[in-house]
Amino acid sequence: MRALVIGGNGFIGSHLVEGLRAAGHGVRVLDAGRARSDVDWAGVDYRQAPYTDPDAIGAALSDVDTVFHLASTTVPATSNADPIHDVSTNLIATLSLLAAMERHAVRRIVFFSSGGTVYGDPEYLPVDELHPLRPISSYGIVKATIERYLLMHQHFGRLDPLILRPSNPYGPRQSAAGGQGFIAAALARLREDRPLQIWGDGETVRDYIYIGDLVDLVVAAAASGDTGIVNAGSGDGHSLNAVCASMERVVGRRMSIEYLEGRRFDVRAIVLDTTRAQTRFGWRPSVDLETGIGRTWAWMQASEQSIHRGNI
Amino acid sequence: MRALVIGGNGFIGSHLVEGLRAAGHGVRVLDAGRARSDVDWAGVDYRQAPYTDPDAIGAALSDVDTVFHLASTTVPATSNADPIHDVSTNLIATLSLLAAMERHAVRRIVFFSSGGTVYGDPEYLPVDELHPLRPISSYGIVKATIERYLLMHQHFGRLDPLILRPSNPYGPRQSAAGGQGFIAAALARLREDRPLQIWGDGETVRDYIYIGDLVDLVVAAAASGDTGIVNAGSGDGHSLNAVCASMERVVGRRMSIEYLEGRRFDVRAIVLDTTRAQTRFGWRPSVDLETGIGRTWAWMQASEQSIHRGNI
Repeated sequence: MRALVIGGNGFIGSHLVEGLRAAGHGVRVLDAGRARSDVDWAGVDYRQAPYTDPDAIGAALSDVDTVFHLASTTVPATSNADPIHDVSTNLIATLSLLAAMERHAVRRIVFFSSGGTVYGDPEYLPVDELHPLRPISSYGIVKATIERYLLMHQHFGRLDPLILRPSNPYGPRQSAAGGQGFIAAALARLREDRPLQIWGDGETVRDYIYIGDLVDLVVAAAASGDTGIVNAGSGDGHSLNAVCASMERVVGRRMSIEYLEGRRFDVRAIVLDTTRAQTRFGWRPSVDLETGIGRTWAWMQASEQSIHRGNI
Repeated sequence: MRALVIGGNGFIGSHLVEGLRAAGHGVRVLDAGRARSDVDWAGVDYRQAPYTDPDAIGAALSDVDTVFHLASTTVPATSNADPIHDVSTNLIATLSLLAAMERHAVRRIVFFSSGGTVYGDPEYLPVDELHPLRPISSYGIVKATIERYLLMHQHFGRLDPLILRPSNPYGPRQSAAGGQGFIAAALARLREDRPLQIWGDGETVRDYIYIGDLVDLVVAAAASGDTGIVNAGSGDGHSLNAVCASMERVVGRRMSIEYLEGRRFDVRAIVLDTTRAQTRFGWRPSVDLETGIGRTWAWMQASEQSIHRGNI
């Protein structure tokens, strides 16, 4: 595979780059940000530019056979404040990307949708890929709309899209301040010995997938040539309170939790059915929640020491 | 009802204005075009401006309780040529409208979606409102996405949206050149004694609803205060060939038909299940296809005479 990873400097993107390299694939990155210093970019063609730059995307698409699209300007919690910005900078930007791919005869795209938002409040659990889409955030609506354009292009024989719907990925390098990533934010509070604020009563259930498991799935799915829609979750649900209890066991310290009023754009519970991913790609998640939290905590402490030593 | 009809100068819009007036409602029109001369606008506050003009929409929303949104810059056949234009001029424009409604505390919107395109190729017939949405045109994707934003606003208690999914409306005033409206286009060819071109073998089935029946449904549904999604069709399917045979009987003349290669964005057959409209609003269609074609033909001949007399 000769891969172009759009958004390859982010949390998921940088792990994906490493996973693709480890599997022997050629990797080019296009990202608006300067390359992060905690990743070994050796052998990677890193290009700093927004994918909305016509010249940059045109050049980046040459000699590429697979595009991984992970870029997003919004997160669920902020997208509803300005849906027009969300549509302009994500939907329209992606339509421009698809047009550029068509011009450069690149047919394969792996799009990172959102298993946590496109379904809305689930009618049943676990949620399979045939569950109706009833997103209640602009973020989820835009993701679902991009999916439709991808499927339309496939219908007309112009693209071979693979649509992944990740649940809640977590692990090393996830930002504690990004507005996505409960585990990263909660561990950071634990480290700083500050109270954690939780929207609602803490019984909100989510499907957390360790970043390494997600990358394994993405690399296998992309290489398969398979198209269509695939849930990318662990298949297990954990409440925020249960996650906090796991973190307390891993860290060996009690957390202080402040419960705030729930947010209406948060669905009560969502767990993904991962049968399709397991059946099609022989994949299954291998890192359980407590192990993954342990690795994330170890990374957090190591990177803090690096910061103190002036290595970052 | 104090109604604002956005797109009130069009085929459906102008009939809706007449229907609302006849039912005793106050009507303001906001339309980018100059008021058509074949409608009696007496008592209507007609304002010529695009609804994307912030000043115009702000002023138009004052003292209004219900917005009817019928404006569209695209039709299914052209929307795929430039999806970015479609998204910019329809989706983003509508999001601006919703934001303006929120600012002016107008909660009620009746949105004209598209029963012919949002479902895609139906899994079963007739298609009810719970059928999955798999549009294969940008036009259908944008309509379905606007629906989602409306439902999200309803979820958050900000709007009371009613979403209508009309099938294929036809009748007097429909343009023969607009790219939508097979019956108008075919009757115009008959009148001009020119051959009619049909994409495919003519066995494509559509649900044609007479404009008067559609307006009756819209006025009743809007006045009900009901929210949600409602199919607006006749519930009957007719192939293009069957429609042509009806037209030949009405006009008393043979048509010359040229069959062209089918278009991939046309679904094979679609007929709407209208149970919900009938149950909720006690409505049912009253004009059968041949009667409706007869009225449309009579209008066409009368308007031609008007043109010859210099009245239009």
